[in-house]
Amino acid sequence: MRISQRIQEMQLSPIRKLVPFAEAAKKEGKKVYHLNIGQPDIETPKEFFDAVKNFDQKVLKYAFSQGIPEIIESFRKYYDKWDIHYTEDQIRITNGGSEALTIALTAVCDYGDNVLIPEPFYTNYNSFSKSTGVHCVPITTKAEDGFKLPAKETIVSLINDKSRAILLSNPGNPTGAVYSRDQINMIRDIAIENDLYIIADEVYREFVYDGLDYVSFGQIPEIEDRVIIIDSISKRYSACGARIGCICSKNDELMAEVMKLCQGRLCVSTLDQVGAAALCNVPDSYLTSVYDEYIKRRNVVYDALKEIPDVICEKPMGAFYIIVKLPIKNAENFVKWMLTDFDLDGETIMMAPAQGFYATPGLGLDEVRLSYVLNVDDLKQAMIVLAKGLEEYRKIEK
Amino acid sequence: MRISQRIQEMQLSPIRKLVPFAEAAKKEGKKVYHLNIGQPDIETPKEFFDAVKNFDQKVLKYAFSQGIPEIIESFRKYYDKWDIHYTEDQIRITNGGSEALTIALTAVCDYGDNVLIPEPFYTNYNSFSKSTGVHCVPITTKAEDGFKLPAKETIVSLINDKSRAILLSNPGNPTGAVYSRDQINMIRDIAIENDLYIIADEVYREFVYDGLDYVSFGQIPEIEDRVIIIDSISKRYSACGARIGCICSKNDELMAEVMKLCQGRLCVSTLDQVGAAALCNVPDSYLTSVYDEYIKRRNVVYDALKEIPDVICEKPMGAFYIIVKLPIKNAENFVKWMLTDFDLDGETIMMAPAQGFYATPGLGLDEVRLSYVLNVDDLKQAMIVLAKGLEEYRKIEK
Repeated sequence: MRISQRIQEMQLSPIRKLVPFAEAAKKEGKKVYHLNIGQPDIETPKEFFDAVKNFDQKVLKYAFSQGIPEIIESFRKYYDKWDIHYTEDQIRITNGGSEALTIALTAVCDYGDNVLIPEPFYTNYNSFSKSTGVHCVPITTKAEDGFKLPAKETIVSLINDKSRAILLSNPGNPTGAVYSRDQINMIRDIAIENDLYIIADEVYREFVYDGLDYVSFGQIPEIEDRVIIIDSISKRYSACGARIGCICSKNDELMAEVMKLCQGRLCVSTLDQVGAAALCNVPDSYLTSVYDEYIKRRNVVYDALKEIPDVICEKPMGAFYIIVKLPIKNAENFVKWMLTDFDLDGETIMMAPAQGFYATPGLGLDEVRLSYVLNVDDLKQAMIVLAKGLEEYRKIEK
Repeated sequence: MRISQRIQEMQLSPIRKLVPFAEAAKKEGKKVYHLNIGQPDIETPKEFFDAVKNFDQKVLKYAFSQGIPEIIESFRKYYDKWDIHYTEDQIRITNGGSEALTIALTAVCDYGDNVLIPEPFYTNYNSFSKSTGVHCVPITTKAEDGFKLPAKETIVSLINDKSRAILLSNPGNPTGAVYSRDQINMIRDIAIENDLYIIADEVYREFVYDGLDYVSFGQIPEIEDRVIIIDSISKRYSACGARIGCICSKNDELMAEVMKLCQGRLCVSTLDQVGAAALCNVPDSYLTSVYDEYIKRRNVVYDALKEIPDVICEKPMGAFYIIVKLPIKNAENFVKWMLTDFDLDGETIMMAPAQGFYATPGLGLDEVRLSYVLNVDDLKQAMIVLAKGLEEYRKIEK
């Protein structure tokens, strides 16, 4: 029997595909610091668990396809604080940001259409676009330039009659970059002049550091009908295992169509919605302390990287990732070697090879993405392990 | 901006699109019996809620993309009882049966390929196929024939070089039909002779009545590499709001590819998985009593329908649905009228117009699907309301 071409062309997650090597290392007794995946160790707010535990209905019924009213209201209030004002029909609850992205691509693209995406980009954008028959057209950005967008004419030159949207994450995963107001305005103008949607993945909105100005695409009136916001509670509230995200837009016609896809898969987990709806009761101090913690973590990682010879990286201004250019030829081999052949007093680290974050072949071969989602002590130790491992590997790389 | 053709071609759920009329009726003070949706009123096993409430981790982390080991093991044991023996890599946990179907279509079809589906069929098969760019080729079956499959040559004549699979639900939603061993063998032979997959949606496997012989497609060795089982706990354990299903196949190459799609959307709700994994501890008496209850309900509905003049329906042998041919011209108008213009002592009922379950235009216009998911007393009353409403409507239908 034939297996579809589209699924064969997809790749296993570069973040997850080396997990078997990590598991094997653990079985050998090694401690593995997981810097490969954006799974924070921050506690999920108690309010989430309390709401779930207080659920007292006897029948676990389907929820409304668009989400239960309480959670939609909770998101509405949240956006109000960001000066983004949605009606209840402009927010649809999804199975995490992942489903929101698949829905967005399905709603604005037909098979063979394309979307422009600054690369390196979140590797699963490849999965979502491949499974929806959409081509990713990469807008290449570089570690040595701090992942700034290229000039307007460079971006415009990539647009053709099959282009439907610009998809970007801001703050950026995997880059940690935050777009400046000028860059945002450039994207706005390109979208207007070329009749494109903007699919803005803003799941790291809270994580912008050092007092940097942050502009949400939801805050720009001129493009409110062409902006689709992708959101999730996974990172904001360290609730990755609750598959709760949303897709939002002031384009009411679009959102009416989106409802068809929501109805198709019936609903999002009822209990996760009940838990997530209670997050509006979490005091602001929770997010503040999380924020402070991530700044410390970023600094630990960045400061340590600056001490490692021949490593290139920019200080990330948002999210909790950093792309690091290493003085080696093949980062995937290095990541694997760290798990299979190396340890420092029984410890090693797992990273994500960055090649999988690029659509352009040959880019990112010598880069890794680190997620600074562990506590400061673990991160300090992990960076010592990385420095030592890199030193060893450089001696033997063929 | 352009909205994609594919989403515009999709329909709102015929099961859910009239919900606003039901809501309006309720606001007017009417009691509405919901026979439109397969949402049982049976209690979800306590074991599910207990497991969720005993979850004591502080961080709600991503689960494994393929599902947590406990739930995969739980499904394995469940299938063992049905004499279907899967390894752990032959089962992937999904967001309900819905996601399992989308994954199956994506994995075996490319854009423009087609699948054969006996109609009437579960309306969301349209959504899943439309959003994955797959054409549904209907194999028409009829209420007056008890929804039996047509002759082999009729089915074979529908196959072309773009055909990749036969998709069917057994027991059938919305028909309540259960395929005989002869029909199963015919499908088996057609699949082998024409190199097709069989995507077998068996989420109602437990609900087969009157001692009828039930054959799962998972039990037939000759086609084990071409059978994909779609499953869900939603109906079996009345846990529709827990989005837990699975896709299973002994085609290891296919299941390795399926893992890419699982990784793309990261994981299924962690808490729902924890709850569902505990369902293997539910005593058999739970399913037995649920089964007995549904037989009573089916009998109430079927016996009442036989008393209504000029109504045509077959006694359903499985699932908890019945398709009813009514002596009217347009069932959708009737369903709407029952909500907006009719009540019997303040009560009315909501049904699903059956047109949406057919792919062939013009079929099912005078049919409705009833779900017998309410308790016996409510069902008795609902059928009285239906009989009276139909009597009134026949006098005034234009």
